[in-house]
Amino acid sequence: MLHFENDYNRGVHPVLLNALQQTNDECLAGYGADPYCASAKAKIKSACHCPHAEVDFLVGGTQTNQVVIASLLRPYQGVIAVETGHISVHEAGAIEYSGHKVLTLPAHQGKMCPQELSQYLHDFYADGNHEHMVFPGMVYISHPTEYGTLYSESELAQLAQICQQYQIPLFLDGARLGYALAVEGSPDLATIARYVDVFYIGGTKMGALAGEAVVFTKGNRPAHFMTMIKQHGALLAKGRLLGVQFDCLFSNNLYQQLGRHAIEMAQRLKAVLQQKGYRFYLDSPTNQQFVIVDNQKLAQLAENVCYGFWEKYDENHTVIRFATSWSTRPEEVEALAEIL
Amino acid sequence: MLHFENDYNRGVHPVLLNALQQTNDECLAGYGADPYCASAKAKIKSACHCPHAEVDFLVGGTQTNQVVIASLLRPYQGVIAVETGHISVHEAGAIEYSGHKVLTLPAHQGKMCPQELSQYLHDFYADGNHEHMVFPGMVYISHPTEYGTLYSESELAQLAQICQQYQIPLFLDGARLGYALAVEGSPDLATIARYVDVFYIGGTKMGALAGEAVVFTKGNRPAHFMTMIKQHGALLAKGRLLGVQFDCLFSNNLYQQLGRHAIEMAQRLKAVLQQKGYRFYLDSPTNQQFVIVDNQKLAQLAENVCYGFWEKYDENHTVIRFATSWSTRPEEVEALAEIL
Amino acid sequence: MLHFENDYNRGVHPVLLNALQQTNDECLAGYGADPYCASAKAKIKSACHCPHAEVDFLVGGTQTNQVVIASLLRPYQGVIAVETGHISVHEAGAIEYSGHKVLTLPAHQGKMCPQELSQYLHDFYADGNHEHMVFPGMVYISHPTEYGTLYSESELAQLAQICQQYQIPLFLDGARLGYALAVEGSPDLATIARYVDVFYIGGTKMGALAGEAVVFTKGNRPAHFMTMIKQHGALLAKGRLLGVQFDCLFSNNLYQQLGRHAIEMAQRLKAVLQQKGYRFYLDSPTNQQFVIVDNQKLAQLAENVCYGFWEKYDENHTVIRFATSWSTRPEEVEALAEIL
Amino acid sequence: MLHFENDYNRGVHPVLLNALQQTNDECLAGYGADPYCASAKAKIKSACHCPHAEVDFLVGGTQTNQVVIASLLRPYQGVIAVETGHISVHEAGAIEYSGHKVLTLPAHQGKMCPQELSQYLHDFYADGNHEHMVFPGMVYISHPTEYGTLYSESELAQLAQICQQYQIPLFLDGARLGYALAVEGSPDLATIARYVDVFYIGGTKMGALAGEAVVFTKGNRPAHFMTMIKQHGALLAKGRLLGVQFDCLFSNNLYQQLGRHAIEMAQRLKAVLQQKGYRFYLDSPTNQQFVIVDNQKLAQLAENVCYGFWEKYDENHTVIRFATSWSTRPEEVEALAEIL
Repeated sequence: MLHFENDYNRGVHPVLLNALQQTNDECLAGYGADPYCASAKAKIKSACHCPHAEVDFLVGGTQTNQVVIASLLRPYQGVIAVETGHISVHEAGAIEYSGHKVLTLPAHQGKMCPQELSQYLHDFYADGNHEHMVFPGMVYISHPTEYGTLYSESELAQLAQICQQYQIPLFLDGARLGYALAVEGSPDLATIARYVDVFYIGGTKMGALAGEAVVFTKGNRPAHFMTMIKQHGALLAKGRLLGVQFDCLFSNNLYQQLGRHAIEMAQRLKAVLQQKGYRFYLDSPTNQQFVIVDNQKLAQLAENVCYGFWEKYDENHTVIRFATSWSTRPEEVEALAEIL
Repeated sequence: MLHFENDYNRGVHPVLLNALQQTNDECLAGYGADPYCASAKAKIKSACHCPHAEVDFLVGGTQTNQVVIASLLRPYQGVIAVETGHISVHEAGAIEYSGHKVLTLPAHQGKMCPQELSQYLHDFYADGNHEHMVFPGMVYISHPTEYGTLYSESELAQLAQICQQYQIPLFLDGARLGYALAVEGSPDLATIARYVDVFYIGGTKMGALAGEAVVFTKGNRPAHFMTMIKQHGALLAKGRLLGVQFDCLFSNNLYQQLGRHAIEMAQRLKAVLQQKGYRFYLDSPTNQQFVIVDNQKLAQLAENVCYGFWEKYDENHTVIRFATSWSTRPEEVEALAEIL
Repeated sequence: MLHFENDYNRGVHPVLLNALQQTNDECLAGYGADPYCASAKAKIKSACHCPHAEVDFLVGGTQTNQVVIASLLRPYQGVIAVETGHISVHEAGAIEYSGHKVLTLPAHQGKMCPQELSQYLHDFYADGNHEHMVFPGMVYISHPTEYGTLYSESELAQLAQICQQYQIPLFLDGARLGYALAVEGSPDLATIARYVDVFYIGGTKMGALAGEAVVFTKGNRPAHFMTMIKQHGALLAKGRLLGVQFDCLFSNNLYQQLGRHAIEMAQRLKAVLQQKGYRFYLDSPTNQQFVIVDNQKLAQLAENVCYGFWEKYDENHTVIRFATSWSTRPEEVEALAEIL
Repeated sequence: MLHFENDYNRGVHPVLLNALQQTNDECLAGYGADPYCASAKAKIKSACHCPHAEVDFLVGGTQTNQVVIASLLRPYQGVIAVETGHISVHEAGAIEYSGHKVLTLPAHQGKMCPQELSQYLHDFYADGNHEHMVFPGMVYISHPTEYGTLYSESELAQLAQICQQYQIPLFLDGARLGYALAVEGSPDLATIARYVDVFYIGGTKMGALAGEAVVFTKGNRPAHFMTMIKQHGALLAKGRLLGVQFDCLFSNNLYQQLGRHAIEMAQRLKAVLQQKGYRFYLDSPTNQQFVIVDNQKLAQLAENVCYGFWEKYDENHTVIRFATSWSTRPEEVEALAEIL
């Protein structure tokens, strides 16, 4: 069976596993106070060209979104996201559980349109009843989006400028950030750090066992953020698990390499799909490829390959996702080519 | 200045005020344990032809929505409402503050479409990822809706049938229920009580100083509901204020009469608006009338009449609301006719 | 039957009722934007000798505590109160429902000891694990306390000084504030406003149908407080109900008079109790008197008078409360004297 | 430097690390749907002699307490714990953040007294005002307690009987459960599973990188528990990390062995401490030993050994903790003996 259903089906990158093994016997301070966390933070700040950034490690994506959003918002505020945003749909209401509304804008292939954001904010304050409504207190985007698409630097700049105008932070969910960074011409880490107020660098989908690195870029880390992490049940006792892994990911350009590998595999896969005449749902430059498949074909494919069900397209067709990752092997793409 | 901006700009109906005065000197138990609350509950149950109903009094509409919804939902559940529903837009996130997502469907002149509800519920459970999503745990409708429109008995029956199929309660927000009941051919109290699992009978907009009567119709009042009311800061010490008023509203058909009066005033107003060539935003049978007005005309109107701003229609036009109420006088409609 | 069970068993003071009647027919803006609210706020600021104070009206005590505390605290903070504090025991977990812990200190006849507060705060920050604990973010006291006792100016000053040192607000729950102000030698409104950061002036127990006036004294009203009130379901549509009543209570010294009347009645009651040899649970200078009664005597009393059950004292004795109020009549105290 | 400050300062037990390595390359389903999770669950059920138990894996202790408690309680309920309970003090208000009060009883060397629990529950329902208070909805105990002490089978039976009487679940926090199980004469897993309604088997402090196994023993796993785990941000994408580790811990008696090793090390340490004349704060049979040390001695010790600061004892003395663990080596205890 071939596995293209997601980018987290294999364990951990060997370099990270080896580092966990090498450091396993050391007695280290808990809760992120160990030297590996410190080293990883320093490397991340350096990679972001943002020496004054503040970095924290959390375990998973939904957790990170919940903790960051709940810590930055005031009770009367909600977070703006597109309708297909992860926090809007696939986090079981984690944001609402922490008391905040997700305010939605239309999604354009997973992306937020700066003009629509600007209009929304303008209209909100122009509405005579806005004091009876949830105030927009933050803008959430994902990059890559849930549909594999990317923001250009110009789009990030526009979104950032609008957020500044309304004095609300721009938060970028980078659960798959490495797969964005590897796409030629897309914004690099330093560019992202310059435009957004807070973002996270995904580890779970980039070869770590678990772990996401939150980066506050503007001196805006909330006071007593660690206590709020704990309050959410999100503080890992053995913080070393996160520190050691991120220390590896940000050594020797590993994070970039893993991203590039997945993108190369995705490009090969895309070529195969095109060649075989598959219909693309949209044009994704990253590691997730969405195709519209006849339901009969689907059943046949399922015998030999795991793919991700995305959504019903029409009565007879379904949108499915093929994902490559840091761990996809060239021979797996070749084997898939034969099946498709 | 004429006042048609809403249906709660005057104080309290004289009969209610008189009853407050007559009972003022009595020493009564607090927190709703007084005989007037008991009497009012009995009369409401009788009016609903629902002897086993359970009735509670709360102070205001947003509070009632929050307390009822939070008490009936499990943490993993949200409430389905249309996009223009009061809980979706104009309650400052009160539902989300209590931890629950408002799941939205399109609004059709303020109403929920049974077919769309059915499709939504079907699609939810058909989605392979639904365990990562907020479960639909209740359906919320308002009657009249925020746009003054009404559900027919057949529509209520369909919504109820769908809710039963998925074993989730149907909740009807009746902040303006009296104005619905007064419309010929619309479902009466007993019909509503038969179809919905819980609803509230609005007092604030029907001549009370404050007060909403929640009716659980299916033996489904949550255990320790009073404690949950208290926990929301919603338990009135002098529950008599609510009991005495509802006891009056449900004596001598007063609630029905007040509704009918407002509808009669609305019909006169509607006739005037039609005669003067105003363009209606939609056809509302109840006490709220929505018209599309040229912005220049708007400024001129504002000199003599208070109306409700509703929304921008286009660059040059605005949707405004004229509301009649239990307290609107015929001469006020006549005076308005001269201004329009 | 005589009624001494609490201070909210009668309706509303006639002057307030009359004002509600006089203004009933006026068309007024909703949500507290009417001129009576404005006038009441001005009078309260003046009575507090605090021209820059910010005043809001809420409906009830638990609601006020919940809204004020949740609006002022950050998520990682809790509120310090004594173990017998209203928020600690008798609000059905309203504070915890809004996400915050009530951190408790021992109660000394219902009061907080400044030295113990100071020690608690010192120890908290001295504890090496305090970042894993709930931060003390506010101090809550009630005045009169739940046991009818009062803070002296010196005690208020000490508490305020400690709060300032730790930069956390001092919040005074004045559900029965009028009964404190009427006690000779106790701090007046201006003194209270000078020392505390936020407090509320109780209406419900002082002759209003409902209503509490929150006073922020240090320019510390949270941004968008009205939206947070709404979010808690605590924003009254007919804000006039609160405005008109507080406007009366703060005209012609009525609030002070009502307090003095209750205290005079309490003193007569106290004299009777002493004369009859009742054992006092503690020495209360305000309108609540606590006596330790033999259980047999209790049953006998219950035939003719409503009192408040307070707590079991021992196997054979019970602590009960007699409360006078703005509405207690001299002849009621006389009649009670005969029964006791 | 010697490390006795806690039981989670080393990484992961070699057997677990090896299994992570062996399975690393397998493509596995996410979110706990992999075969290692299934195998681990089966082994845990077997070890508990509880074939109908339901098992879930979570990441950390505070998270587990929060998710389990919030999922089992109704909004009007709180959880009873002793004052020194982990949820009472050292979880940054995680329980309150989820809306529930921690109701406290006195701690007796960290333990809850069944008689006091019974009295508390009796008094609660006997209190005429209890509907205005937080209902006790669950009992939380830790075993070992935060002070290393253990419940006897008889005590567990008594607590369970009281909980049954009031129909509330008994929840046992087993963050260090392995260190309890290894103590001769203490209740075994099957006994615990028989008496308590839900408990968790700690992994983090027993040689796992992270992970706690929640066991519902009475068919009482809440509906849609996985969705609630997700909602708390607690659902691990690579659930294999937890499954593989627990599968190892419950193979070949490893969990028991690790516990026994730590207890043996603790006994050696205890003997050394006694021999050197150290004063014990209490008599702990498990891996945590608490001694009262002169502050001067403390500074001297700190040069060579990491210990846990526990609390100030008096002006000149401090209570400190020495913890052994699965990873403590005999030679480390010997080296400590020379320093003490």
